[in-house]
Amino acid sequence: MPTSASLANRVIKAIESVTGQCDPAAHQQYPLHEPQFAGNEWNYVKDSLDSTFVSSVGPYVNKFEQMLADYTGAKHVIAVTNGTAALHISFMLAGVSRDEEILLPSLTFVATANAASYLGAIPHFVDCDERTLGIDPQALRTYLKKCTEIRAKQCINKNTGHVIRALVPMHTFGHPADIDGLMAIAHDFHLNLVEDAAESLGSSISGRHTGTFGLLGALSFNGNKIITTGGGGAILTNDAELATRAKHLTTTAKLPHPWKYEHDQIGFNYRMPNINAALGCAQLEQLDNMLALKRRLFERYQRAFAGVPEVTVVQERVGCTSNYWLQTLLLNKTNSHKRDAILAATHEKGILARPAWQLIHTLAPYRHCPHMPMEVAKMLERRLINLPSSVKLMK
Amino acid sequence: MPTSASLANRVIKAIESVTGQCDPAAHQQYPLHEPQFAGNEWNYVKDSLDSTFVSSVGPYVNKFEQMLADYTGAKHVIAVTNGTAALHISFMLAGVSRDEEILLPSLTFVATANAASYLGAIPHFVDCDERTLGIDPQALRTYLKKCTEIRAKQCINKNTGHVIRALVPMHTFGHPADIDGLMAIAHDFHLNLVEDAAESLGSSISGRHTGTFGLLGALSFNGNKIITTGGGGAILTNDAELATRAKHLTTTAKLPHPWKYEHDQIGFNYRMPNINAALGCAQLEQLDNMLALKRRLFERYQRAFAGVPEVTVVQERVGCTSNYWLQTLLLNKTNSHKRDAILAATHEKGILARPAWQLIHTLAPYRHCPHMPMEVAKMLERRLINLPSSVKLMK
Repeated sequence: MPTSASLANRVIKAIESVTGQCDPAAHQQYPLHEPQFAGNEWNYVKDSLDSTFVSSVGPYVNKFEQMLADYTGAKHVIAVTNGTAALHISFMLAGVSRDEEILLPSLTFVATANAASYLGAIPHFVDCDERTLGIDPQALRTYLKKCTEIRAKQCINKNTGHVIRALVPMHTFGHPADIDGLMAIAHDFHLNLVEDAAESLGSSISGRHTGTFGLLGALSFNGNKIITTGGGGAILTNDAELATRAKHLTTTAKLPHPWKYEHDQIGFNYRMPNINAALGCAQLEQLDNMLALKRRLFERYQRAFAGVPEVTVVQERVGCTSNYWLQTLLLNKTNSHKRDAILAATHEKGILARPAWQLIHTLAPYRHCPHMPMEVAKMLERRLINLPSSVKLMK
Repeated sequence: MPTSASLANRVIKAIESVTGQCDPAAHQQYPLHEPQFAGNEWNYVKDSLDSTFVSSVGPYVNKFEQMLADYTGAKHVIAVTNGTAALHISFMLAGVSRDEEILLPSLTFVATANAASYLGAIPHFVDCDERTLGIDPQALRTYLKKCTEIRAKQCINKNTGHVIRALVPMHTFGHPADIDGLMAIAHDFHLNLVEDAAESLGSSISGRHTGTFGLLGALSFNGNKIITTGGGGAILTNDAELATRAKHLTTTAKLPHPWKYEHDQIGFNYRMPNINAALGCAQLEQLDNMLALKRRLFERYQRAFAGVPEVTVVQERVGCTSNYWLQTLLLNKTNSHKRDAILAATHEKGILARPAWQLIHTLAPYRHCPHMPMEVAKMLERRLINLPSSVKLMK
C-alpha cells in the first residue's frame, strides 16, 4: 500500500496532467469551480441596466423562467433568489409543517436541512448508495418498514410519533439519484417527493430532466454551479396550482392591483432580480456547450487516473446523464484514511480540491435529529474528493 | 368643498407642472420611482463579470459594506440579499423568539411583519404620529403603561402573557421617526430597539444617520429605493459581536476552513452577490447628488401645490434630514374620502401615484395580532398619496 505522500503525489500528477501545472509561488490557483462568461452576459446585463429594470420586475426574469421551462421540460418555473429559497418554498408547498419530519440525505449541502428548519420541520436523515451517491431506496424501504406505520394515509414515525411528510432526493454533484426506486417509496409510504436538483441542471434520467419527477424541484445558480446568476435559484413544477402559489409566496403574496398594497398571506421577498436573470439568460444559452466541455473534462480525468488504481473517477450510471458538475474521485476503501493528506497536498499546490460535506446528521444544529444507520454515507464521506471542475480547464 | 373630480384635476395639474405633461396615449408613464444609473454602474458591473466573481464572495461586497459604514457612521455593515433578510436577521439577533411579541407600526410595508413571522414571533401593531408618519412615542407609552408590566426586566403583555421583546420604528418614506422618544420607551420598558431604515438611506436625526440608533438597523436597496442593487439590503450595527454573528448567520454559519464544510448553526443564504454589490458601489457614489435632486424635487412639488389648499406636501421636521425618498401628499381631513378618485384619475393619466400601504393589522395574515387603537394610522392611510419621485424628473 502506498504512503499517503506517495498517493497524494500521484493524484496531483494526474490532476496536473489535465489542468496543466499550477504555480502557487505565482499565486496561481485552480479553484474547484469558476464560472465562465463567454456569451451574451455583458450584453444582457447592460441591457438590463439601460432599461433601469434591474429589480424584481423585468423581462429577463420571465425570459429566464421560460428558457428553464423549455430546457428542463418542467411546465412551470419560478425564479428565486437562491437554491435555499427554492427548497424553502418547495417544502412549504409540499405541505411540510412544524414538527413534521422530512427525509433528507445526510450527504448533502446544509441548505437542504436549513430549508426544512425554516418551517419548523425536523430533518430525518437517510443513508445513500455508493452507486448513485444519492439516497439508497432499498435501505430506506427496509428502514421505513421497520420504524414507521401508515395511519389515515399518513406515514408516522413510530419512535417519535411525528408525521413524515416528504422525501427529498438530492442529485449529488450532478449524478442522478435512483429516482424510480424513490418514487415508489414516496408512493407506498404516502410521502411527497421534492427533488433537490441544486447541483443537477443538465442531468437527466432516461431523457427526463432531474427536478421534474417530484411534486416540485429546486435548482441553484450560485456562483459555483454549472451556470450562475450571481445568486439565484428556481422552483420547477408540473402542477399549475402549485406554480401559482409559488409565484405568489415568493413575491410577498401581494394581490394584483394597480396601486393597492394588499397581501393575503405571510409571503417572502424571494423574487430573482432582473439583473441576475439577465446573466442567467446568457448563461443558459451556453449550457449545452458547457455540458459538452464538462463531459470531456471527465474523460480526461478518467484517462489521467487510469494509472492510479487506488482511486476511481465517478462516472454516470447507465440510463442516466450526469452534468458532471463536480468531477469526483472515489478513494478505494483501503486508502480512505488518506483523504486529508491528499487534500492538504493539493491545497499546498494551489489545487483547491475538496472533500464532500461533513455529514449533516453530525453537525451541531442537526445532531439531535432522527437518522437511519449511515454506513454508506460515512464511508463515502471519507472517500470522496472533488477535483477542479471549471469549464475553462478545457481551453 | 370641491368635487373629487375637480380636486383630482388640480392635483394632476400640479404634478404635471413639476414632471411635465404625460401622454398615456403614447404609453408614456411617470412611475412612482425609477432608479438612475448615471455613474460607474457599467464599469463596476462589467468588472465584476470580467473577474468572474459575481456571487457571494468578491471585493465589491466588502467595498459596499465599507462605503455604507463610512456613509452612515455605523461601525459594522453586513450586506444581504434584501431588506426583508436584513430585518429577519436583525430581529433574530435582537433576541426575538417564537411566541414573543414585537412592536411594529401598522403603517409600514408588510415585510416588517413578515420578518417577525419567520421567527414565529407575533407582531403587535402600534399607532403613528401625524407629524413624523412614524410610531407615536407618547401614545405608545400610555398604551404600554396600561397593558404591560415589567417582570424580571422583561416587558410582559398583560393581555396575552407574552414577552414583548423589541420595538421597531420605521422611517416612513424617508422621514425620520421620533427616535429620542422611542429610545426612551425602549429603555423604560426593556425593549430592544431595531430600526427599519429600509426607506431612509440618507436620512438623519441631529446629524446621526437613521438605522444607527438601535441595537441594529436594516436598509433596503430594492429597485424602488433611493439607491438600488437590483435586490439587496444591509444590517447596520455598532456592536462588534452582533456584527460577527450577523455575518456568520447570513453566510450559512460555515466555520472557516480551507476545505471542510462544517456549519455550527442553522444559517441562511442571505449574502449579497458581488454583481449586485458592484451596482451598489456605483450607486452609493452618487447618493449625495441624488439626495440633492430629491430635495429640489420636493421644493418644486411644494411650490406646485401651494395653490391647492386641500393638500400639504409632507416636509422634513426641524432637526431632521429626510432623504425625500417618496414625495408625499397629505389630503386635509375634509377631503380624505377623495383619495381613491385622485388615484384613479392620476393612473388614467399615466401618473403612477399610490396610496400608503393598507394598514398591516387589517391584512388577513395579521388580523388576529394584538394592536393598540389606530386612530392616527387609519386617518393617515386615508389621506396619504405618494407622488412620482424619480430623480430623473429633475433633469
